[in-house]
Amino acid sequence: MTAHESVPSQLVPTAAADAAESSQADGAPVVRIRFDVAYDGSGFNGWSRQPDQRTVQGEIERALSTVFRRHPPAPTLIVAGRTDAGVHAAGQVAHADLTAQQAAAVLKPRRGSTAETDAGAALARRINGILGPVPDIVITRGSIAPTGFDARFSAVWRSYEYRLADREAKRDPLQRHRTTWYPTALDGAAMSEAASTLTGLHDFAAYCKPREGATTIRTLQDFGWRRDDDGVLIATVKADAFCHSMVRSLVGACVAVGEGKLAIRDLALLRDVGERTSAFKVMPARGLTLMQVGYPDDSELAARADQTRARRSL
Amino acid sequence: MTAHESVPSQLVPTAAADAAESSQADGAPVVRIRFDVAYDGSGFNGWSRQPDQRTVQGEIERALSTVFRRHPPAPTLIVAGRTDAGVHAAGQVAHADLTAQQAAAVLKPRRGSTAETDAGAALARRINGILGPVPDIVITRGSIAPTGFDARFSAVWRSYEYRLADREAKRDPLQRHRTTWYPTALDGAAMSEAASTLTGLHDFAAYCKPREGATTIRTLQDFGWRRDDDGVLIATVKADAFCHSMVRSLVGACVAVGEGKLAIRDLALLRDVGERTSAFKVMPARGLTLMQVGYPDDSELAARADQTRARRSL
Repeated sequence: MTAHESVPSQLVPTAAADAAESSQADGAPVVRIRFDVAYDGSGFNGWSRQPDQRTVQGEIERALSTVFRRHPPAPTLIVAGRTDAGVHAAGQVAHADLTAQQAAAVLKPRRGSTAETDAGAALARRINGILGPVPDIVITRGSIAPTGFDARFSAVWRSYEYRLADREAKRDPLQRHRTTWYPTALDGAAMSEAASTLTGLHDFAAYCKPREGATTIRTLQDFGWRRDDDGVLIATVKADAFCHSMVRSLVGACVAVGEGKLAIRDLALLRDVGERTSAFKVMPARGLTLMQVGYPDDSELAARADQTRARRSL
Repeated sequence: MTAHESVPSQLVPTAAADAAESSQADGAPVVRIRFDVAYDGSGFNGWSRQPDQRTVQGEIERALSTVFRRHPPAPTLIVAGRTDAGVHAAGQVAHADLTAQQAAAVLKPRRGSTAETDAGAALARRINGILGPVPDIVITRGSIAPTGFDARFSAVWRSYEYRLADREAKRDPLQRHRTTWYPTALDGAAMSEAASTLTGLHDFAAYCKPREGATTIRTLQDFGWRRDDDGVLIATVKADAFCHSMVRSLVGACVAVGEGKLAIRDLALLRDVGERTSAFKVMPARGLTLMQVGYPDDSELAARADQTRARRSL
């Protein structure tokens, strides 16, 4: 998957979200921390925790277990976009709920440092310390989440970038971990035109790996291609949410146009047929990076989360 | 070293250069190919061929042996800047001399492709094919070298970049292979001011690992610091040539200024003492990239090479 936010809510592990709500109901204070996270996906079997697999969630939650070894249980993470194996992130967002006792523990001054004043920043620093001096995951920011914030359900949009170096592009070995190298020359202008025909509110079943009970109706807000200074083709893709493998399928369809195997108009036609096709390939994870997750103003966070939960469970 | 061009010429393996000259003398035609090369230095024990070590020269020469397995001996490479273990390159330059028979072999059409017209481009394509689909070395260009061209001795300047993410900078895990992460906040403005005091023609013995018989007199043409959009400190360093570990020493001296351990004026004072000091550290290879090698106009290539050879052997 690229990021699958399409699982119906009754199947989703919403432990943290539920904890936040129920604890508010029974009066036990909870501190929700927002984490902004960047990672090189190369060494991970995706975001989601799995037994005996190195995953991003698994590594961060292991660090949380170390931080809170005297105040168990350690919190678990809820994420905005669960990325697939090999997919990178520059601006992933997750949240975790601390008990009042855990929040106090994080703020306690440690040997050689002054007392902390922000539990979010302090916790991010502790996790980064455990992840090591040059890790493939970095918590770029930790902050106390505003009321009603839910990393997954409050999100309004997600944006991705896909980097594709075709035969015309300069191939930079230092960027090979996050770039797909393609052996032939691609028509970037045709790809951009094709991409623009797909935007709007549609059923993207033809561009998704199906999941039972999950809707594939999405609003594709933005989809285009440009070449950077090295001639590398860069797709920008933005939607309210993405279903499984959607970005890599959209990119694959454009590549088929770029090498003349599909016509520009075919992409919307295939979308409207609404079934998976072999007319294009799902592109490799290597070139894909989750760039940013958008949230509404603080005052609308809770309403947005309720609205998303209701829609997903239809 | 960063790139050591300071070895006296009598110790230098100038086989290829000599071959070019002698073959011109006895009339045997030689085709000199210029290679522009980019690599991620992380997986190499530096540029120079060494038994039982993975090196950049070793890998490219192995590919050349494969290309010319029916026309031995395969050519060897002469390089502009022999980089140390872990140092990267975006614009390294090397040359190799082909016999007329080898050049003809490269131009012969291969199964499924049309006849080649440029031995340099054809050879680069063959080497890249052997290096694999996503290699850590890429020949970015192969071309027939102009008369008098010598990758090492015709070069007029080399430029390097050093990437340093201090505590103020955003730490991007996708760029960690080519960036040194530093735990404290550094004063970039002071570092830039200190850097500018070092430029000009000087003996840089204090900033070089000594090599017997090698001069450490260099013209440092440009040395400054800026922060990029992520706040990463980037040093630009340009000189006619560099002696062993010179860039990483210059960077280390600026870091000592940036954290307040040395004063701005100390860097020129230490340089003028002319001896190695423990007042600053040689910084890690990870952050260092050879960016570009400058050559004079084609008409001046041979004169420049003669001049460099004469000066190095003083």
